[in-house]
Amino acid sequence: MKPLLIRGGTVINADREFRADVLCADGRIAQVAPSITAPAGAEVLDAGGRYVMPGGIDPHTHMQLPFMGTVTRDDFYSGTAAGLAGGTTMIIDFVIPDPKEPLMAAFRKWRGWAEKAASDYSFHVAVTWWDQSVHADMGLLVQEEGVNSFKHFMAYKNAIMCDDETLVNSFRRALELGAMPTVHAENGELVFLLQGETKNKGITGPEGHPLSRPPAVEAEAAQRAIAIADVINVPIYIVHVSSAESADAIARARARGQRVYGEVLAGHLVLDDSVYRDPRFEFAAGHVMSPPFRPKGHSQMLWRGLQAGYLHTTATDHCTFCAEQKAAGREDFTKIPNGCGGVEERMSVIWHEGVNGGRLTPTEFVALTSANAAKLFNIYPRKGCVVEGADADLVLWDPQATKTFSAKTQRSLGDFNVFEGRTVQGVATHTVAAGKLVYADGDLRAERGAGKYVKRPAFGAQFDALARKAALEAPIPVKR
Amino acid sequence: MKPLLIRGGTVINADREFRADVLCADGRIAQVAPSITAPAGAEVLDAGGRYVMPGGIDPHTHMQLPFMGTVTRDDFYSGTAAGLAGGTTMIIDFVIPDPKEPLMAAFRKWRGWAEKAASDYSFHVAVTWWDQSVHADMGLLVQEEGVNSFKHFMAYKNAIMCDDETLVNSFRRALELGAMPTVHAENGELVFLLQGETKNKGITGPEGHPLSRPPAVEAEAAQRAIAIADVINVPIYIVHVSSAESADAIARARARGQRVYGEVLAGHLVLDDSVYRDPRFEFAAGHVMSPPFRPKGHSQMLWRGLQAGYLHTTATDHCTFCAEQKAAGREDFTKIPNGCGGVEERMSVIWHEGVNGGRLTPTEFVALTSANAAKLFNIYPRKGCVVEGADADLVLWDPQATKTFSAKTQRSLGDFNVFEGRTVQGVATHTVAAGKLVYADGDLRAERGAGKYVKRPAFGAQFDALARKAALEAPIPVKR
Amino acid sequence: MKPLLIRGGTVINADREFRADVLCADGRIAQVAPSITAPAGAEVLDAGGRYVMPGGIDPHTHMQLPFMGTVTRDDFYSGTAAGLAGGTTMIIDFVIPDPKEPLMAAFRKWRGWAEKAASDYSFHVAVTWWDQSVHADMGLLVQEEGVNSFKHFMAYKNAIMCDDETLVNSFRRALELGAMPTVHAENGELVFLLQGETKNKGITGPEGHPLSRPPAVEAEAAQRAIAIADVINVPIYIVHVSSAESADAIARARARGQRVYGEVLAGHLVLDDSVYRDPRFEFAAGHVMSPPFRPKGHSQMLWRGLQAGYLHTTATDHCTFCAEQKAAGREDFTKIPNGCGGVEERMSVIWHEGVNGGRLTPTEFVALTSANAAKLFNIYPRKGCVVEGADADLVLWDPQATKTFSAKTQRSLGDFNVFEGRTVQGVATHTVAAGKLVYADGDLRAERGAGKYVKRPAFGAQFDALARKAALEAPIPVKR
Amino acid sequence: MKPLLIRGGTVINADREFRADVLCADGRIAQVAPSITAPAGAEVLDAGGRYVMPGGIDPHTHMQLPFMGTVTRDDFYSGTAAGLAGGTTMIIDFVIPDPKEPLMAAFRKWRGWAEKAASDYSFHVAVTWWDQSVHADMGLLVQEEGVNSFKHFMAYKNAIMCDDETLVNSFRRALELGAMPTVHAENGELVFLLQGETKNKGITGPEGHPLSRPPAVEAEAAQRAIAIADVINVPIYIVHVSSAESADAIARARARGQRVYGEVLAGHLVLDDSVYRDPRFEFAAGHVMSPPFRPKGHSQMLWRGLQAGYLHTTATDHCTFCAEQKAAGREDFTKIPNGCGGVEERMSVIWHEGVNGGRLTPTEFVALTSANAAKLFNIYPRKGCVVEGADADLVLWDPQATKTFSAKTQRSLGDFNVFEGRTVQGVATHTVAAGKLVYADGDLRAERGAGKYVKRPAFGAQFDALARKAALEAPIPVKR
Repeated sequence: MKPLLIRGGTVINADREFRADVLCADGRIAQVAPSITAPAGAEVLDAGGRYVMPGGIDPHTHMQLPFMGTVTRDDFYSGTAAGLAGGTTMIIDFVIPDPKEPLMAAFRKWRGWAEKAASDYSFHVAVTWWDQSVHADMGLLVQEEGVNSFKHFMAYKNAIMCDDETLVNSFRRALELGAMPTVHAENGELVFLLQGETKNKGITGPEGHPLSRPPAVEAEAAQRAIAIADVINVPIYIVHVSSAESADAIARARARGQRVYGEVLAGHLVLDDSVYRDPRFEFAAGHVMSPPFRPKGHSQMLWRGLQAGYLHTTATDHCTFCAEQKAAGREDFTKIPNGCGGVEERMSVIWHEGVNGGRLTPTEFVALTSANAAKLFNIYPRKGCVVEGADADLVLWDPQATKTFSAKTQRSLGDFNVFEGRTVQGVATHTVAAGKLVYADGDLRAERGAGKYVKRPAFGAQFDALARKAALEAPIPVKR
Repeated sequence: MKPLLIRGGTVINADREFRADVLCADGRIAQVAPSITAPAGAEVLDAGGRYVMPGGIDPHTHMQLPFMGTVTRDDFYSGTAAGLAGGTTMIIDFVIPDPKEPLMAAFRKWRGWAEKAASDYSFHVAVTWWDQSVHADMGLLVQEEGVNSFKHFMAYKNAIMCDDETLVNSFRRALELGAMPTVHAENGELVFLLQGETKNKGITGPEGHPLSRPPAVEAEAAQRAIAIADVINVPIYIVHVSSAESADAIARARARGQRVYGEVLAGHLVLDDSVYRDPRFEFAAGHVMSPPFRPKGHSQMLWRGLQAGYLHTTATDHCTFCAEQKAAGREDFTKIPNGCGGVEERMSVIWHEGVNGGRLTPTEFVALTSANAAKLFNIYPRKGCVVEGADADLVLWDPQATKTFSAKTQRSLGDFNVFEGRTVQGVATHTVAAGKLVYADGDLRAERGAGKYVKRPAFGAQFDALARKAALEAPIPVKR
Repeated sequence: MKPLLIRGGTVINADREFRADVLCADGRIAQVAPSITAPAGAEVLDAGGRYVMPGGIDPHTHMQLPFMGTVTRDDFYSGTAAGLAGGTTMIIDFVIPDPKEPLMAAFRKWRGWAEKAASDYSFHVAVTWWDQSVHADMGLLVQEEGVNSFKHFMAYKNAIMCDDETLVNSFRRALELGAMPTVHAENGELVFLLQGETKNKGITGPEGHPLSRPPAVEAEAAQRAIAIADVINVPIYIVHVSSAESADAIARARARGQRVYGEVLAGHLVLDDSVYRDPRFEFAAGHVMSPPFRPKGHSQMLWRGLQAGYLHTTATDHCTFCAEQKAAGREDFTKIPNGCGGVEERMSVIWHEGVNGGRLTPTEFVALTSANAAKLFNIYPRKGCVVEGADADLVLWDPQATKTFSAKTQRSLGDFNVFEGRTVQGVATHTVAAGKLVYADGDLRAERGAGKYVKRPAFGAQFDALARKAALEAPIPVKR
Repeated sequence: MKPLLIRGGTVINADREFRADVLCADGRIAQVAPSITAPAGAEVLDAGGRYVMPGGIDPHTHMQLPFMGTVTRDDFYSGTAAGLAGGTTMIIDFVIPDPKEPLMAAFRKWRGWAEKAASDYSFHVAVTWWDQSVHADMGLLVQEEGVNSFKHFMAYKNAIMCDDETLVNSFRRALELGAMPTVHAENGELVFLLQGETKNKGITGPEGHPLSRPPAVEAEAAQRAIAIADVINVPIYIVHVSSAESADAIARARARGQRVYGEVLAGHLVLDDSVYRDPRFEFAAGHVMSPPFRPKGHSQMLWRGLQAGYLHTTATDHCTFCAEQKAAGREDFTKIPNGCGGVEERMSVIWHEGVNGGRLTPTEFVALTSANAAKLFNIYPRKGCVVEGADADLVLWDPQATKTFSAKTQRSLGDFNVFEGRTVQGVATHTVAAGKLVYADGDLRAERGAGKYVKRPAFGAQFDALARKAALEAPIPVKR
């Protein structure tokens, strides 16, 4: 593989921007310096005043996911290739064991599915049930397989929903192991009740979906998970925070000094729940995901959380189903497979609304699309930073260029695009993965199987700090 | 029964104070007027500048409760008699069915036990499990037995703890019936975990009790119950709010317009958790109740809630065990029967700390010790107000007189007093129940069986308002 | 004057509703009882199932106000007559001395103007400057003239704006006197800056008005006044709370136990700031008042404050200017006289949106339109309660009847109505003032000069409590 | 100057820690790499497993300050030398013009005084009054003198206190210039009132100091400054946040997306107000500074703010007066010169309580003692980061070593130490300034005049973002 020199750009990292050339060799960043002489045989890419940023990390995707009786359209190849076309060079996907399925067995199954990935990837593993084998497998996953985060679904009753007993045990185990617990925060009992009541009122179309999952249902679960983590003294990461109430729960916990982190989806930042009342079933159903898009006003609060620093990452929950699949819920919204795309659009959507919109600085953009995820999942600065020695995952960003999204032109295999027709300014013109140019001005050169599994080491210092804190707070024995 | 005329006092109601004589006849207040001529044969009590207030209502007591393998010392006679000696003329106790025990059966059992009561009484009924018979019995209780409130224990795992499914179903049923759901807010799963962890650290004494039930455990449950009530659109009443975090959860919910009500115990207003670290086991164990007394600072926030109006009632959770009973947990704090007294002391404790302490006006005192409970449980102004036609339950209050509490002099049968040695200024000199003088200057004339069961009608207007609100918010159908 | 018997109604007070007849004689309520025999010569009014409520109190009006170089259209006669037609039987208006004008002189001037009033009235007195004569006059007003509240304008720079030094001195003096400080909360320096900047951008029409007075400007002043009151340990009443931010400041202060009270205007509860962008100057200018109507969403927070109990009264800031007067600001929005009407519409607007809208119960309606104002300004239960001995100021309310507001049919002399075209259900069919039927089914019998000045005594108990609190918190001397 | 190679340490930056050698040459960091060969003639320092961190930046000191009729003991030489001994390699001090004194004149005076500094330094300039010359001088200072922050005292009535008119004008001007407004947040009118009232009660000793400046006085000013900045759309930095209420005001503003930054002093993090009640006048007076140390409990909230990220920097307000100077206020606490030391102790105090105390990770420590100040005052990564090209200001940190503070052993010229007797673990063993070893294992080699004035450029991107935001929010013209 020949070296690649990116010349004349402005590097943007999470902490600062500066003029520098960037030399990639052997998959790594070999040098970052004001003026680098191209090594023999190097390919030279003229950044021409554009930005050179760490490639995006999408910490929440579901490629090739078996869910609600079907499987998502994008597999690990098509999904990661779509990501590369939008400037995203790594995903963190989810291993989701069925209840009673051994965690290690599920993990191996997903590892197999992911071998075709075109970009680097890693896995959160879901804990959907509890017994001693789960306890043991969590240990194996952390200590041998490079998993440092476990996911818990507080919704999806009678399927993958985790009860409080499992939450408590799993969080406790995660603390021991130095792994981050994460939660999908929606109260499954309330969703179940409201789904029934909504259908009893004769509402069976997609407009019933948000009625059965109002913000209060999300906020309750977020608060519960945060409280459990607080009592157990373990950090916690809330995926897809979608509502003002939930963001506020995080802000309040952080204001007490608790280590709580929040993720926001690109879709929740720009869409609202009016989509569900569209008369076209396909359009409305195409937006069905959980948590649903929210009433106008919530997005603004999510932006504020990102600005203020109590929300930390942006993701997509990329999980694509086509119209034919969505049609399974034509008579009953609870049967519409939940999921929307976005891995290809995220970076531009957030730049356009965030940076152009006067909400974020470019360094904050890098933090929110890449560096923070790398830090929170303990792969920084290997990922998430343009620095010597890091993986050569880069994006060349043109803040002037524009693009209009459409299902017709997207790389993702879904036939729907929640950002359909939206024109953004600020696009990835080139993407570099592991030192290779994999996307260049519309030419996608994604290679099946080129992506590698990224092991994420268990946490050290921060968890240690928590343990130390617990020790400091240990009570003095009473003599009786 | 001869009429009773209280002459020369200042009547204090929740809305105002005014000089007036009060005439009682046939168990009712016959007249409230500036100057009443004594009817023939009337007993005349000279109020001599003292206050005439509605008798106290303690909305949270457990007389004759079978709990943790034993039964409380005070039965319905001794407990209500102690109340009368302190100016409390009505209690609302709890029927607590065992899991699987029919609600109506338990209700009848408690009704039988309570026949010996010396003051009026009523019952909240606990919902500790769920099936269609519970659904049906809730209906009978509301429509035929005068029960308008149902209690849910979110703690006490493997015993009377209610899971979320039961909470959701019971709250939903309460809304239909016009009954108020109430909760004991502590997350039982977390308590269970922390009890184990505390004992694993070798802490087996009473100092382990608060370690296993920190404020976060209470706040989580309060928030969860409030969120469920919010989604279901039913009011909710949180019993024994003990922590700043829990009070804050109520304040936030009310600030969103939700109908949430909070109760505070006299003990939580004046004691702190240092009691559990006392070297005398008996002393420490004597204070074991749930939620436990809290670190210094929490009490202040509870007072603020009462002042600001987001906490509404004061109670005691009167539930007395003697030293011999408490000794069951000598080797294991989780086996100490939970409970403390207070029905006799509450009124004076709150006057002393509240009114003398510059925190409350006398009218606020009446609201917080009597009128608000009557309103919230729908027996106002029959109870809770000095007004013509109301039940003649009154207390003559001397704001100058003092009293020192002690287990040695208390009327309650327990052998412990959490207010031991505390001197208060502001005491009931006379208590009138159903028009009869039952306590006069230290002379307690409580009569076994003189108390009557008070039926509390289902709620109308306020619940209707909620239902109307739900209707207003009903979505417009989407045409497809 | 012959007695008046209102028969067959349901009395609604702030604490409860009950079936009762009401007999008025000699200007007072002589009897409230289930079934009253009409005295000889009594006029009998058949309530026919309607509600009998205390007449409305509007604690914030400006009749006959000289302001911004002109004088409001409604004088004390026409304004109070309009109030009677809508069920409002008392107003509290404002004496506003010019800077350097002696308070007593201004007070006497206003007393003279008000002699023509058709309903009872009282006065808040504004403190717009400070010296020892102001200090002395405040004493006279409280001790001899029945004034127990002082108003402070934090806006209107270079006119009646009060600086912090005056605020501090006046609040301190109010505490001594047992009088309630009240504030118009807008930061006048910021308004001044923003008016200039808005005009510099070329915006001179009424749409500039809200741009120059955003919610943050109000919230700042509210917080400042609350903080000053907190430090001085005096209660405080914030007039016309219009924004979520300001309401939140009050809620937070109350949650700390501070005695803060908030007033909301009927207009702010139902209108939004889109009115200022109407292309018709007359329409937009007709809505110019301060604080301005707010973006959608704020109203909801004000309703929540009323529901939760951290906002306490409803008023109108009735201050009517006609189109000709408003035209003074045709080229410069800062010259549009500030003010709108509402004294005639308030009760129905709040019933319709509050009670019919599922937000308030009827007892809460009475609290918010009458009883709370009476309590906060220390004239309860003479006003604000249907009880024997109270002033016979009553309204007979038909919750089924409807009415459509219009400037064409209103009694107020203004030529504009901010509620134009709005149809409400729930109207006053009869109004009784001082025992006389002054409005009956559309027939307004308001009598010039029939209204009396209502002296409001200085506060006792509550202020004493505050003083006691300060004493309790007094520091222990340090020996050196 | 010979090169300096620090070998074998662990570099800690704000974003990560890593093993690396660090080579300094010509005052800059020449290389940061795993294993560096020492250049010819280089001095080699064996880090031996210790940490290599960016030198501390203290963004709040007052050296050689004329204040309250006297001048601080430490001048720019002794003060910066003391800083170097504790690992602090740069200070940002304050130019404080008297009212009516031209800003440029004051700036030149301070520049002269500071020439003797041993470490690098920069200046915030106070705006204490307003006219067009101030407006003009602000421009000169930003555009020619490298000043990008202006300070405003909201306290010190009749001296340097800034009224709202000045605040508004100065903030507005700062926005234009791309400079950061900062405030000392205490309401001077309230302080003035309370000082008088406290003395009227006969309290004249240092215990009167905190009574005259309670937390509410600080919170009011913080909220006011934040609100003004919000309306003007300029970022704001609050110096020495000392109370929970003030921290909360910042948290709330940030939660709305506002760019507010907070600074905390080392002293406020570990001391409480009990010091003022010490019977020794010298001891109590030695702690007199503003804002004062707060009641227990406030410190915890400040730590939480640092942990949660809504407080950003740590400083000292180093401002030393000796016992003789403090004695000026022996009969009147308002005459005690306000100020305490700390520049030498800050780094160790925060490491000990923060990192050892389980509250902060080492990277967070670097952010809070150095990097964040550099970022907020726009000199990052020249300062605040161990990276090639940065100024070679470094500290070698031994997390195991201990030290006990005392006025007897301190380098600062004051005769008092607020951390007297406190033993900390975690100390600077060596300090490097501009590439030279200026402190080594107790040997202080500070050189008079070796420090340079650091110009801080005006802000670009972030302020531009704010301006863009304002533009986006500009209203659409109304056609009339």
